[in-house]
Amino acid sequence: MNRDKHISSVFDRDLETIQAMVVKMGGMVEAAITDASTALDTRDQELADQVRRRDKAIDAMESQINEDAARLIALRAPTATDLRMVLAVMKISASLERVGDYAKNMAKRTEVLSQMPAIAGSGMALRRMSQAVNRMLQDALDSYIRRDADLAHDVRQRDLEVDQMYNALFREFLTHMMEDPRNITPCMHLHFIAKNVERMGDHATSIAEQVVYLVTGDLPDEARPKSSSVVAPAAEV
Amino acid sequence: MNRDKHISSVFDRDLETIQAMVVKMGGMVEAAITDASTALDTRDQELADQVRRRDKAIDAMESQINEDAARLIALRAPTATDLRMVLAVMKISASLERVGDYAKNMAKRTEVLSQMPAIAGSGMALRRMSQAVNRMLQDALDSYIRRDADLAHDVRQRDLEVDQMYNALFREFLTHMMEDPRNITPCMHLHFIAKNVERMGDHATSIAEQVVYLVTGDLPDEARPKSSSVVAPAAEV
Repeated sequence: MNRDKHISSVFDRDLETIQAMVVKMGGMVEAAITDASTALDTRDQELADQVRRRDKAIDAMESQINEDAARLIALRAPTATDLRMVLAVMKISASLERVGDYAKNMAKRTEVLSQMPAIAGSGMALRRMSQAVNRMLQDALDSYIRRDADLAHDVRQRDLEVDQMYNALFREFLTHMMEDPRNITPCMHLHFIAKNVERMGDHATSIAEQVVYLVTGDLPDEARPKSSSVVAPAAEV
Repeated sequence: MNRDKHISSVFDRDLETIQAMVVKMGGMVEAAITDASTALDTRDQELADQVRRRDKAIDAMESQINEDAARLIALRAPTATDLRMVLAVMKISASLERVGDYAKNMAKRTEVLSQMPAIAGSGMALRRMSQAVNRMLQDALDSYIRRDADLAHDVRQRDLEVDQMYNALFREFLTHMMEDPRNITPCMHLHFIAKNVERMGDHATSIAEQVVYLVTGDLPDEARPKSSSVVAPAAEV
């Protein structure tokens, strides 16, 4: 075994250890999304509190991944291609951490919303939207582990569906607010939750784009919907 | 000059080149915030369009900084301390890119809002809030260039004021919505803008935290307000 080969395999083993942490972190974030949206729909305060407490472990996981990745770069001085993988791991864990924050925020608003009139159908709609985002996130992480650019492209496409779900909810909340001023405050909170779920989808998309970058060497050049570009059109509201 | 010294000074020169790009990017983002909030307040569609177009240059700047930073790591295999600086540069440029996105989003909503009834005082209030955030951003970047942990701590403190401005606006918009249903749609958009300006403040804070980390080796452990933790309390609305 020549020296390069030896160095390369040590690098691979170290990177796999970090990737395993990312997969574990992904599982924690997916559980946070599922539990936060269930808690919101069923007004389960205890479950919402759990989600908020568990977010600390997700944040700690990101710090650990960043530290280990930095140590790997410093120790192994990876080549351009290997370096790109380590940088992707760091970007992916940053995205997961943000998604975890949004789930925590949903859990916080559950408490606020439990003191207000319920908006019919909103809990179920947000749960469906959260499930779609969760599947995107799972597939984005899967595409990363398998270096599967096709699956990553598929995730990017599905972000459009989530954006449509958001736009539909935006109009629905407006209708409720116009009908009865007592609905205004709960709808403001529900609207923020919907926007944050839509942003979770943007982060899943951004992970998928990292995978495309890893596999092909280029970020997708085709314009994709970003969180900032989703502005419900005035004509529709 | 010994070899280590030589390598170190080449590294320093390369890092300074990247830092100069970060400073330039910071200037572009600050201009985007100023122009977006001016355009919103004065309903200046032409200026809003400029902000939207200029965001591409900000995004390109982030990609360039990431590429150069990755090349620097690969070429120079920096020590732990130097590596930390390069990683901080990448995190700072990622924050700046997000702030640029929020400014672009504000510019987009300017067009939507121009077709709706004006909400008295809102443009000026959002402009004031944007100015406070811009000063935070300038000082955060300044603290980075001067490795000034005291200034960085000061930026973190000022994020609380921005959060208070946001909470005050949240209540104001609710009042307008309750008073007249025709205010609901514009207030929803204005509310999103306020929330996004509040998030810009979070990013300035996060840059300041990177500086504290660079100078002291630790991220501030004292809990700080994050975008996800700002939920207007139900009791107040």
